[in-house]
Amino acid sequence: MERPEVGELAPPDRLLMGPGPSDVHPRVLRAMSTTLVGHLDPAFVEIMDDVQDLLRYVFRTDNQWTIPVSGTGSASMEAAVANLTEPGDTVLVPGNGYFGERMAAMVERAGGEAVFVEAPWGEPLDPADVAAAFDQYQPDILGFVHAETSTGALQPQVSELTSIAHEHDALVIADTVTSLGGVELRVDEWGIDVAYSADQKCLSCPPGASPLTLNDRAMDKVLGRETPVRSWYLDLSLLQEYWGDERAYHHTAPITNVYALREALRLVAEEGIENRWERHTRVAGALKAGVESMGLELNPDEDWWLPSLNAVRLPAGVSDDDVIEPLLDEHGIEIAGGLGALSGDVLRIGCMGHSARAENVLALVGALGSTLEDVGADVNADAGLNATRRALRR
Amino acid sequence: MERPEVGELAPPDRLLMGPGPSDVHPRVLRAMSTTLVGHLDPAFVEIMDDVQDLLRYVFRTDNQWTIPVSGTGSASMEAAVANLTEPGDTVLVPGNGYFGERMAAMVERAGGEAVFVEAPWGEPLDPADVAAAFDQYQPDILGFVHAETSTGALQPQVSELTSIAHEHDALVIADTVTSLGGVELRVDEWGIDVAYSADQKCLSCPPGASPLTLNDRAMDKVLGRETPVRSWYLDLSLLQEYWGDERAYHHTAPITNVYALREALRLVAEEGIENRWERHTRVAGALKAGVESMGLELNPDEDWWLPSLNAVRLPAGVSDDDVIEPLLDEHGIEIAGGLGALSGDVLRIGCMGHSARAENVLALVGALGSTLEDVGADVNADAGLNATRRALRR
Repeated sequence: MERPEVGELAPPDRLLMGPGPSDVHPRVLRAMSTTLVGHLDPAFVEIMDDVQDLLRYVFRTDNQWTIPVSGTGSASMEAAVANLTEPGDTVLVPGNGYFGERMAAMVERAGGEAVFVEAPWGEPLDPADVAAAFDQYQPDILGFVHAETSTGALQPQVSELTSIAHEHDALVIADTVTSLGGVELRVDEWGIDVAYSADQKCLSCPPGASPLTLNDRAMDKVLGRETPVRSWYLDLSLLQEYWGDERAYHHTAPITNVYALREALRLVAEEGIENRWERHTRVAGALKAGVESMGLELNPDEDWWLPSLNAVRLPAGVSDDDVIEPLLDEHGIEIAGGLGALSGDVLRIGCMGHSARAENVLALVGALGSTLEDVGADVNADAGLNATRRALRR
Repeated sequence: MERPEVGELAPPDRLLMGPGPSDVHPRVLRAMSTTLVGHLDPAFVEIMDDVQDLLRYVFRTDNQWTIPVSGTGSASMEAAVANLTEPGDTVLVPGNGYFGERMAAMVERAGGEAVFVEAPWGEPLDPADVAAAFDQYQPDILGFVHAETSTGALQPQVSELTSIAHEHDALVIADTVTSLGGVELRVDEWGIDVAYSADQKCLSCPPGASPLTLNDRAMDKVLGRETPVRSWYLDLSLLQEYWGDERAYHHTAPITNVYALREALRLVAEEGIENRWERHTRVAGALKAGVESMGLELNPDEDWWLPSLNAVRLPAGVSDDDVIEPLLDEHGIEIAGGLGALSGDVLRIGCMGHSARAENVLALVGALGSTLEDVGADVNADAGLNATRRALRR
């Protein structure tokens, strides 16, 4: 416990094109250096109101209970799961990716039983399978992942899933961690009861305050629980006193992260949420065109391609470290490898928020092509880069 | 869900002299505007190492398991309580303040039984009462609050408390939220097994990454649990894979908050931890001299006065709002009223970290005297300010 010698904070400059965090807009970084007011200051209460309004806009919801949870994405995930799940509840979770497994782990921690509806990793759930699982298990809750960060697969047909759940009087929890603010998401129109997200993905905010929205039906279940939520910190029946009309002290909010989220959401509102979805599709489309023209293949099918997270199959004979390490060390670009069942099979290339810009995609496709050529992979780097350039001109 | 009209982030300028947050040093604010690297970047792993080394220095511990928890202070509090408490455990908690009650609530959420050792609010626990409670309840864990933010009372005789617990083979959890980095605290020397804290108090960091330390004996209990921890997000048996040698992904760390904590801890190391304790005693002593010379009384006895949080009894006929609102609105100074049993009886005036400076204490004592005179309280504002000025010259 001697006084450590620790030098000035000087992290390297990175272009963040992995599964998150994404690059943060300079205005958001500046918001983070704003001096603090107290978490019960009347001025902070106004800031809280702003953030709640902006979150409703981005989630496309009128839900009163729309708040940032005081932690990173897994905290809002656990807030959703732990508050909705009572001991003895059965929760149907997706078996098609890493984050369905995490959802199951959280269900078990909450005292519920997790049952799976299966689909191959990299494919969406089939509504027919969900209906069959409802008949088999009669679950109280359906959880699904709208944008699976581990596989790069989008879940289409969300309204079909929520309809099945509601016919069986179940509630629906949606993981929107990698879709909120980047991929079309309509919480109210699609019948989602609870959605949670993170701020360091398509919102391009430093992680630490994580969006969560619940409709009245879901909040009624939380407020009518027979047993208390197993986490005091994440208990929404207590948090509602702070984020609701009373503004009573529960725990200290992460003030600066709320400042940053407000600015990041303002940027979304300035751009317009539909325009932002369109930008992600267009810019990620150019990235996709580039890697495909290079000779690589995306893991998911075209019908459930996820613009914000592109899972690219590794060419024969190339390991993920062969690509990831030179990209980081020589080009300063962060991407990631596969998780779980896809570990070692794919590269995960994000295209989120402030990172989803033409110049970044060109840099990424260029560096990826060169790196693959360097390790002797059978790719056409020039064709990839040209395809990206042409796609961006459209 | 129309696009909300939200203007530029422009919170008012405040001097934070309440129970936290405290004013943040400009170097820490600047660290928060640093561009991000990923939470698995080799450069971030080095930053994590730095933070762990610095936390050990500030806690005065050699504990390997010394980390920032990804949330505000109540998250590190629940991480300590929820990981150490197994269903069926009995936990002895203090009945002398608001945060002992919170500890009890967290024990119950974890499936344990909370039993209380009583002392009046504003007084410390008496070791004889703790020993009697051990004989009565045979608890598995003793929790105590080193610096009770709700009452302004310090717990002296910490080694006596930990000795009693260890004689009974129990573990000790210490709440050091309002002492870490401001008031003498020696985790190893005093025999504390687990200590948690917050970063927005005497460390003067924006809230969001909260210190926690466990010795091997405590971590052995966590790793040997018969049932999983009831929160996945706060489960230290999973978190150790990220903060330990493996650096395996668990959840996304609040990268920017870790940057800020690193810089805040560097400032502590530059000042020297003993010097910092001495500064808090000296500057808060001048604050205390001022309010006493003005004619006010501190709620706690001299023997357990807490420099970082001064609970001042309200003079007859004056409500806390009579003082708190004008101080905020006219002077831009945040202080707070009482909590729980002391609600309406005291003002809580913090003197923490970067706020604990001569000019701030003079501003506070001056504004407090004027405000009390304005509402007709029987105080001598001039005498108070002069006493503060003289105390600061010593």
